[in-house]
Amino acid sequence: MIIVMEKNTPQEQIEQVSEKLKDKGFQVHLSQGVERIIIGAIGERSQAIMEMFETLPGVEKIVPIVQPFKLASREFKHQTSVVRVGDNPIGDGKIQIIAGPCAVESRELFLEAAMMVKEAGATMLRGGAFKPRTSPYSFQGLEEEGLKILAEARELTGLPVVTEVMDPRIIDIVACYADVLQVGARNMQNFFLLRELGKINKPVLLKRGPSATIEEWIMAAEYIISSGNSQVIMCERGIRTFENYTRNTLDLSAVPLIKQLTHLPIIVDPSHGTGKWKLVEPMALAAIGAGCDGLMVEVHQNPSEALSDGPQSLTPENFNTMVKKIQNLKAALENGQ
Amino acid sequence: MIIVMEKNTPQEQIEQVSEKLKDKGFQVHLSQGVERIIIGAIGERSQAIMEMFETLPGVEKIVPIVQPFKLASREFKHQTSVVRVGDNPIGDGKIQIIAGPCAVESRELFLEAAMMVKEAGATMLRGGAFKPRTSPYSFQGLEEEGLKILAEARELTGLPVVTEVMDPRIIDIVACYADVLQVGARNMQNFFLLRELGKINKPVLLKRGPSATIEEWIMAAEYIISSGNSQVIMCERGIRTFENYTRNTLDLSAVPLIKQLTHLPIIVDPSHGTGKWKLVEPMALAAIGAGCDGLMVEVHQNPSEALSDGPQSLTPENFNTMVKKIQNLKAALENGQ
Amino acid sequence: MIIVMEKNTPQEQIEQVSEKLKDKGFQVHLSQGVERIIIGAIGERSQAIMEMFETLPGVEKIVPIVQPFKLASREFKHQTSVVRVGDNPIGDGKIQIIAGPCAVESRELFLEAAMMVKEAGATMLRGGAFKPRTSPYSFQGLEEEGLKILAEARELTGLPVVTEVMDPRIIDIVACYADVLQVGARNMQNFFLLRELGKINKPVLLKRGPSATIEEWIMAAEYIISSGNSQVIMCERGIRTFENYTRNTLDLSAVPLIKQLTHLPIIVDPSHGTGKWKLVEPMALAAIGAGCDGLMVEVHQNPSEALSDGPQSLTPENFNTMVKKIQNLKAALENGQ
Amino acid sequence: MIIVMEKNTPQEQIEQVSEKLKDKGFQVHLSQGVERIIIGAIGERSQAIMEMFETLPGVEKIVPIVQPFKLASREFKHQTSVVRVGDNPIGDGKIQIIAGPCAVESRELFLEAAMMVKEAGATMLRGGAFKPRTSPYSFQGLEEEGLKILAEARELTGLPVVTEVMDPRIIDIVACYADVLQVGARNMQNFFLLRELGKINKPVLLKRGPSATIEEWIMAAEYIISSGNSQVIMCERGIRTFENYTRNTLDLSAVPLIKQLTHLPIIVDPSHGTGKWKLVEPMALAAIGAGCDGLMVEVHQNPSEALSDGPQSLTPENFNTMVKKIQNLKAALENGQ
Repeated sequence: MIIVMEKNTPQEQIEQVSEKLKDKGFQVHLSQGVERIIIGAIGERSQAIMEMFETLPGVEKIVPIVQPFKLASREFKHQTSVVRVGDNPIGDGKIQIIAGPCAVESRELFLEAAMMVKEAGATMLRGGAFKPRTSPYSFQGLEEEGLKILAEARELTGLPVVTEVMDPRIIDIVACYADVLQVGARNMQNFFLLRELGKINKPVLLKRGPSATIEEWIMAAEYIISSGNSQVIMCERGIRTFENYTRNTLDLSAVPLIKQLTHLPIIVDPSHGTGKWKLVEPMALAAIGAGCDGLMVEVHQNPSEALSDGPQSLTPENFNTMVKKIQNLKAALENGQ
Repeated sequence: MIIVMEKNTPQEQIEQVSEKLKDKGFQVHLSQGVERIIIGAIGERSQAIMEMFETLPGVEKIVPIVQPFKLASREFKHQTSVVRVGDNPIGDGKIQIIAGPCAVESRELFLEAAMMVKEAGATMLRGGAFKPRTSPYSFQGLEEEGLKILAEARELTGLPVVTEVMDPRIIDIVACYADVLQVGARNMQNFFLLRELGKINKPVLLKRGPSATIEEWIMAAEYIISSGNSQVIMCERGIRTFENYTRNTLDLSAVPLIKQLTHLPIIVDPSHGTGKWKLVEPMALAAIGAGCDGLMVEVHQNPSEALSDGPQSLTPENFNTMVKKIQNLKAALENGQ
Repeated sequence: MIIVMEKNTPQEQIEQVSEKLKDKGFQVHLSQGVERIIIGAIGERSQAIMEMFETLPGVEKIVPIVQPFKLASREFKHQTSVVRVGDNPIGDGKIQIIAGPCAVESRELFLEAAMMVKEAGATMLRGGAFKPRTSPYSFQGLEEEGLKILAEARELTGLPVVTEVMDPRIIDIVACYADVLQVGARNMQNFFLLRELGKINKPVLLKRGPSATIEEWIMAAEYIISSGNSQVIMCERGIRTFENYTRNTLDLSAVPLIKQLTHLPIIVDPSHGTGKWKLVEPMALAAIGAGCDGLMVEVHQNPSEALSDGPQSLTPENFNTMVKKIQNLKAALENGQ
Repeated sequence: MIIVMEKNTPQEQIEQVSEKLKDKGFQVHLSQGVERIIIGAIGERSQAIMEMFETLPGVEKIVPIVQPFKLASREFKHQTSVVRVGDNPIGDGKIQIIAGPCAVESRELFLEAAMMVKEAGATMLRGGAFKPRTSPYSFQGLEEEGLKILAEARELTGLPVVTEVMDPRIIDIVACYADVLQVGARNMQNFFLLRELGKINKPVLLKRGPSATIEEWIMAAEYIISSGNSQVIMCERGIRTFENYTRNTLDLSAVPLIKQLTHLPIIVDPSHGTGKWKLVEPMALAAIGAGCDGLMVEVHQNPSEALSDGPQSLTPENFNTMVKKIQNLKAALENGQ
């Protein structure tokens, strides 16, 4: 890290900073600029170390040089990671399409939806069993009953299932039934949860928090990896901005950025990312253009009867049309290389 | 709620919406505008109900009329709620000052800090025992050992203590030692946690999430209250914006808004709200001007040795000076009324 | 518009609002909800009218029903508008590629760049002659000299040229030389400028302001159209968010939204939209997937010698590669329909 | 500035960067960190220079060390600047209160409002003569007629007047009538306008753009000062965030920040900063607590008949009450020091 001193700092303050740096195990390089002294500190920095120096007398600011994440970075591991979910590799250049309703509402509806999205070309199933929602007065999910339905749908279709886990106490039971455990956007910085997910041996789909920077999101992945589980799939699902026509602003630049900064696969959720079904297809095609490894899409037989997220759910017919366009676009991208 | 139909909607679509409204128990009022039909639906709306209608053919948009929160609203309870913490009433017009270091780092340091802030005028103590942080490589807190130190500090000073709980599994143990349980900004929408906090009989300090709207924040309070615990204290601590000079943008308009929309007390945290100790005093005085019920401030004997949040921590001397200015300002506000 | 009254509003306040509505030419429909009276006001509302009612006693809020824009809306004109620039139609389903350096730096450099991008497949040229920048100490452009070079490049290549105008005083001279007048992001709400651009007979490329909502952006187009010039091309170039890895967050959902809400063509600028040349190609391909009518891309022979925007400029080689991928992708999209 | 090279950069790339730095007049210091080479470049950096190096092979990022503004900075001028408007000094520790309606609507209304706010304690008058608004269909102001009314109000009350100028073509005529020329939030980066305002000899009130960082706002002041006019008054008026209860989020931390970073006076506009009259008084008192030099407040005799900004306008009675509280609070702050 670089420590920028204030203009005309007295010599003793420079020495105080230098001494403290040496105490903490850093090598120190002084450099006299036009207007101020700059101290280069060579060693392992951390957030805590940076903060310690920020308050010493004479210090104007601390500038980090190296990214705070290590295990997730492409510098650490050059080769792209492929996360295997059953027979489906995520990150190997093919597109995985995860589809299904927001919530598991009933056995009949879910099994029917599962068959429909499979026929349309989905390669994995999604469905929420635990649904704590913004309002305490909304439908909260079928809980374990829902997990059993998910497992039955997997038997029926042969497709692996993804479902959300939002509390460390339910990790074990969810891991019993699901193939991929999803961390929802609101839990991206639930560090107790992340740490526990680092101890299981199943892939984790890590959604970006609605106000998380790319760096914070990668740090959340770092939490899981550094706790022992490197099977992390990133999922962009929109960030909060001032725009109100859409529920979130889907940040597709996250796709090439995650690929440049880390070795992890990344998929895109255009359903939550827009909140409007009419925007799902164009944004799904855009995500393919941006180079993502897969999509996660909400589909419901009858969106106007869905217990949650109806407005952003595709009908099976619209989903079917979209999958064809995705496959066509992906084929063109591969031929064009 | 109001349902706005698209221009030139065919009669059958209007009837379909009307029929479905009646099925769900609403009264229906049709109104012919200049360009389109508007359907007034009278009854109890919810997020799920609104979404159901949003996808029916011919519907352009749904406009909610009533706020989604009930128990927290000033309409529901006109009188301002006062939350009692030991002998300290929060919300009765006096200013409560909660102070202490970000984290409990050691018994000696914390007890010393507790005595110092008490002498300077603090009325409650703060300190983190569980500290899961953005980086997995940072100090993670003393955990139960830290809780015991907090309890000892309460004995020593007679001041009640506030500490954070971020996992449902530790609510019981934290409630054993602390007087107020704090929900951190990143957990504001951890609905499992909120629901469990609704079942205990201790005050909950609910921090606003960095990207939460005022409405979402009130809905989080509604979760706790509707689960059985009405002792909720709101805490504004800054939202995320594009500004980089400050760690967060402290939104002081939240103070009068919470007072107008709800009956709950509200305090302000200018330490996290700015991230810079030089901004803490002016923003604390601003918060008093805005009408808050209290402040939560980070104080450390030696900010450049703090294990977390040093840059935003006041020294005991600066805290002492600030408390005098706060008391002076508060007295003027009371006399001026 | 809908006027929602406060709970338990006295009858006289309801009458006061109703009387004032009738005075302003509205028809009035009262509707008694579960908790409050709602007043439907049928007539031509405007921002000013809405504000007038917002402050009347007993009024809780005003809810607009109809969008504030008219001439730009797809409701007003169902057919997609095609804006012709020389021989190039924008909005007819083909992709227009506008390319060139950020600023016209010298005659030699610009003419060379113009030839290079033409050979690579660009269909229009871009280059800034007037460059007032964030810092008063930066290069401010060649001004009229730059315009002449633009015109010479058009002669040389046969491609039409786009350049920015940021002051009403220079509209005439810029219109003399350029084929399309660009309104920069920072001038999107410079209403004097917009009004003057409504009086000329040349296409206007209207960039979205970095903190403009979609609605405000369409209202800026409405300004130009209602002043007499309907040749407006929208250009998404990124909005300001909290993310720092990128200069702006490119909001590609603007592409399908503008197409659904208006009849205007829309292009995308992935150079300003990301600020990093390594993100330009993936985001350009994403924009094609989202359905845009064209792209605007910064290209410089030697980005590390560019007087502005070097970091986001492609080399001619990279541009060449990207254009091939764009053409390939566009062909696939057309075949797939 | 500091140039951070990528991990394992080949020696020749380091030399290329070093050579180019020397060509541009920098001294070069190489420093070998744990993982990468860091190049310290000593000399006058600018945005353009930084961008030039960002694209050289092997360069990971450029880190600026010194702030980009000079003349506006407190480092450049330690003493706080006082801007004189008639007999009113802004920045000398007293509070100036600028009040009046959003727009000059008619001679009678404005002269009456002027007398009312003077009696209540206003020290300057505000009123818009040119009002280009978001919608082309809204009231656009009385233009020169409005300026004459402003001048008449000054004669009548003895108070100086502030009004907005948004086009370089009207600077002369506005400067003829007004005592302070205001740059509106939407024109904060209208650099042609800023440059022209640098050439006049009247104070300029510079509003912060709704999505401007503190640094960009100071750079806008730098434009005016470096063009020859150092009489700049900063005005915080709220930034755009995701919050919808308020029109903008008033960022009061801007007050102490501007005072720490620059020598310029700063006032606060709680009317635009909130958009709701019920929030104006608490936020005005908060701004006083934060240490501002003045307030700018919209007052209208009959907000529900105002042609613009009615919802955020105080009645003269409410304004009167607020001024008393402001004076009381200010007196307490002065006594408490």
